[in-house]
This record gives sequence, C-alpha cells and structure tokens, in this order.
Amino acid sequence: MTHSVQLLGISNAIVDVLAHVDEAFLESVGAPIGSMTLIDENQAQAIYSKMGPATEMSGGSVANTIAGVANLGGSTAYIGKVRNDQLGEIFNHDMRSLGVDIRLEPATDGPPTARSHVLISEGGQRTMQTYLGACLGLSLADITESTVGAPKALLLEGYVWDIAEGPALAKKAAAIARKNGTAVALSLSDSYCVERHRESFDDFVRNDADIVVADEEEVYALLGTSGIEPAIKALSTLDALFAVTRSAEGSVIVHGKKVIQQAADVVKTVVDTTGAGDAYSAGFLYGWATDRSLEDCARYGTYCATKVIQQLGARIEKGLLDDFS
Amino acid sequence: MTHSVQLLGISNAIVDVLAHVDEAFLESVGAPIGSMTLIDENQAQAIYSKMGPATEMSGGSVANTIAGVANLGGSTAYIGKVRNDQLGEIFNHDMRSLGVDIRLEPATDGPPTARSHVLISEGGQRTMQTYLGACLGLSLADITESTVGAPKALLLEGYVWDIAEGPALAKKAAAIARKNGTAVALSLSDSYCVERHRESFDDFVRNDADIVVADEEEVYALLGTSGIEPAIKALSTLDALFAVTRSAEGSVIVHGKKVIQQAADVVKTVVDTTGAGDAYSAGFLYGWATDRSLEDCARYGTYCATKVIQQLGARIEKGLLDDFS
Repeated sequence: MTHSVQLLGISNAIVDVLAHVDEAFLESVGAPIGSMTLIDENQAQAIYSKMGPATEMSGGSVANTIAGVANLGGSTAYIGKVRNDQLGEIFNHDMRSLGVDIRLEPATDGPPTARSHVLISEGGQRTMQTYLGACLGLSLADITESTVGAPKALLLEGYVWDIAEGPALAKKAAAIARKNGTAVALSLSDSYCVERHRESFDDFVRNDADIVVADEEEVYALLGTSGIEPAIKALSTLDALFAVTRSAEGSVIVHGKKVIQQAADVVKTVVDTTGAGDAYSAGFLYGWATDRSLEDCARYGTYCATKVIQQLGARIEKGLLDDFS
Repeated sequence: MTHSVQLLGISNAIVDVLAHVDEAFLESVGAPIGSMTLIDENQAQAIYSKMGPATEMSGGSVANTIAGVANLGGSTAYIGKVRNDQLGEIFNHDMRSLGVDIRLEPATDGPPTARSHVLISEGGQRTMQTYLGACLGLSLADITESTVGAPKALLLEGYVWDIAEGPALAKKAAAIARKNGTAVALSLSDSYCVERHRESFDDFVRNDADIVVADEEEVYALLGTSGIEPAIKALSTLDALFAVTRSAEGSVIVHGKKVIQQAADVVKTVVDTTGAGDAYSAGFLYGWATDRSLEDCARYGTYCATKVIQQLGARIEKGLLDDFS
C-alpha cells in the first residue's frame, strides 16, 4: 500500500486567543480550572470583552498534533473547517507554512472561524472557553475518498463529536480508512468530552480505532473506572494500541498484553500545560508513522511534551527530534 | 485647565504578525536587519506566504506606548484607523481592555487593518515589513476638537508622516493642542522614517513639539550630525524637551541647558528588542504626565524598557511601576 501522507488530521480548526487571568476572573467565569467549555457567539463576545489584551495563535488539539508531526519532519494533511476570514487565513497559513496539505476550502458564508479563549492562570493552567463557529459546518460531505485519500494513519479528535454530523463523519472516515489500509487513531480530547459522548466513544474505540491517545482522566471517564492498574487491565482486553499520558507520572503504552511504562522528564518551570497532550501525540504518532518501536514512540512523545510545557503556545518547534537518539 | 485624559496617541494602528526567521530568510527579503520597510498588499501576501507559523498581537509604535501608559495607571485615549475586520477588532479590544478611550470608529470599507510582519532573528532583532492598509485612510477629517479633546499631552509618531494626509493632520492636531493647553509630543519612529521626512520633522520639532522622544540614530538623522556630544549641544539650542535613548549606553534627557544622563540596566538575555523605545516612552511620558522630576521620568523609562526586552512582544505588563520607587 502506498500512502499519500503519513498522518491526516480531522478536527476542529481553532485560533487560540490567549490571555493571563487571575483567580477572580476565573471565578467570575465559573468554569473549572483546566476545563474546556463550549460557548455560543454571544458568550464569546461577553468573555472577550472582559479579557485583557490577548495574543492570537493557531490552536485546536489535533491541529496542534498535526502541526507537531509536520515540524518533526512527517508528511501530513488536514481536514477542518474555517471561514474565509482573517482568522481562517491565519489558521490555514500556519498549517501550510509547515507543509501541511489543507484538504478543504474555507466556507464562504456562515459563522466566523472558531476561536478558543484560553485563560492562563497560575502554574500555567489553561481554562478554555471555545466558540466553534465555522467548525460546526464540518459535514459528511467533507469526508470523501478524495479528501481523505490513503494516509498511513488518520487522527480524529473527540471534540469532533461535539459538532452535529461529527459522530457520522467519524464513522465515514473510519470506513474509508479501512478500505485503504489506513490506521485510525483517536484522541479522547478531554474527560468532559468523553462524558458527553461516552457510548459513542466506547463503540468507536472497540470497533474503529487502531490507536487511542488519551490522558488518564479521559481513560477513566471512558472505562467508568479509576486507578491506573485497573485501567491497564481493562485496556489490555481491547484490540487498539493505547498511549495514556499521566502528567508528572509519565505515560503508559498498552497493546494487548504488552505494557510499557515511560517516566516523565523533570521540568523546573512549567509555563503553559495544555499543549502537553497534543505534543505527546505528535511525538508518539511520528514515531509510529516512521516504524519506530513502541518504546521509542513513548520516548518521542515524552520529549515533545516536556519541551512544549516550557513555552507559551501549544505547538512544538521545528526539528525538535533532530538531536534526539 | 482640566485635561480629559493624560495622554492621547495619534498613530498607525497595526497588528503585529511575529515569526522567528533565520539569516537566509532575511537575506531573501533584502531588508537591513532592524529596519521597517513599507510594503503594499501584494508584497504583504508574498512575504506572509513565505513566513513560518506566526503569532498575532496588537502593535504599532505609539499604540504600544499608549497601551504602556494605560498599564502603568495613566488615563489615555487613542486616534488611529482600523477596518471593521477581525484584526481591527483585536486591535481595538486590546486597547479598550486597558481602559484606552478609542476615539474613531473602524472604517466600513477600504483596505484591511494594517499588519506588520515582524521577522525576529538572532539576538531578538526585529525586521519589520509593514502593510499600512486601513491606516492610509487616517485623514484631516478624523482630527477635530471633538476627537482630540484637551489631553494633558498628545503623542504623534513619525510614521504618521508616511500616510497621505499625515503631515497636515499632525499640524492640525498641534494647532488644536495649542488652543487647549495640550503639550505636543513626537516620537521620531525610526531613522529611515526621519530621512524620508527630514524637512517636515525639522519644522515640526522647532515649531510644534514640546517633547521629542527618539533614539540616538533618529536624532543624528534629524540633525544631520553624529556623536552624542554634538547632538546634545544642538538639542540644547532648541525649545523642546528631548528624551534620547542609546540602547546599552542608557539615555540622555536634554531640556535647554539641563542635561540628564541615565545609565541603562544590565540585562542578561535579550528576547526581543524593538519594544524598548516604545516602553521607554511609556515610562517617560507617564512620569511627565504625573508631574515627576525629569530624573524620575528617565528612570521610569529605563525600567520599562529593561522589562520589555526580556519578553516576546512590545507591550509592558500591568502595574510594572507599582513596586518602583
């Protein structure tokens, strides 16, 4: 099988609007620290008008991972919906400038490009208030043999289930993948997202996914269990390859009976945490797509995550693994 | 005289598009390191398509200074032209969120909000390729008794002379200021800008400006001289108060016979240099507007500049002088 690219991402195309906030601001928003809340356009305007000066940069969980894989030297493509506005132009520019093949045209009408108001509080914690805008228009019609092609793997994010045709288009993408010898990877996004779509995720993990990347809270939400040992036992009974991140406790790779424990690197100063999972996925999937051992995949993921939490912004730098052996 | 605000800025309203670049990229652009070049829309698209992933944040020289004074606790207002597009919304939001009174409505037609492609190279040097877009529409009609009001001081930037009605609107603003007991401050922007408009600047400095903020290169370009001692001598013969920054050599305040030398602070790691002048102006003018001694003004300016070159981005943080005595 000849694969057109190594990794295709299908996800919400989002521009991050980042600002540092204090406790009082977070309390006034009422969202749990570290959570991602979906908001509508009016709420988006309300929160933006309360925020201080901000910095804008391309974001989106799986979009960050795709940018990361491209920066590591992988060949990548992307399916996500922006509007033909300035933020959409910024999003597509930032992807294309890394060599990512953008598969959809921007929407010419409908809501504006999505933005996530990223409220950074003490210790680099991120609380996200996300207006999905143009992402809500991603539809079954956008997922075709021609837009998906035959990548070595495709990566969906759980957040896609938050859009109307999301569950159906994920299934359609998986069906095209199966036909073309493409592996299907799923990022579970966040534990609240898993709780919103638990049954559908359970079905997708059992019947469609070849690879699942997640943090331990997301895994617990999926399995309805808690504690890493019971979780590893439960994941061992499933077919998919699981990469589970555990913050300072490192990560665990589970593939049937095979279990790999990877320690975290020590970090002195954490600047901004949430890119960590996306960067881990980038390192892990880059390793997987280039046929490295699962041990190496876990080490790559750890290295990328360690780097990204020491900078502002969720996307790793070019050539990060060049000096890594 | 009751002043509506302490400082009103009149300048080009610009969103910065920042990316790190290497020497080869700068050579391909052909611009001198550290310079600001004006480009048209086609050139803007060409350079943007060659740039890597970028970060967007509000910029503009005097706009940075106004944001800085607001962040130090000063009362401020701003006249600059954006379009009613997403970048314009970002620019106005970032100003308003600091309490800056935005005096003009966004343009509803014409070119998009201005953007400056900021190419950051080794040692934090910035090379700027600026597309003025909507700024070019700033006109005489925007400068009225009602938009200018009666601030304690107004601050113009040299870059305003790059727009068609710039020289005329600067004169008009100065005339309104004179009538209302408002001091007129001018930032010389950059030495290339001074060379482009030398005669007009010379006239404005002699006949309209009460305060001039500039770096030494800009002063040399204005005076057609070089060396700090001859420059101080020449500035002493003029009426205006001059604050001249000299990078690592500190700054010099010249007001007639009075000359104050202010040493620079030692900085270990310079992240990004160009906000330095804007931040110095913020500290200096905040001091001036709050009736501090010229010695204190120079110390405030130095402190703000020292802080800003150690971060990415040209705008100083809130409350920077709170612990400063």
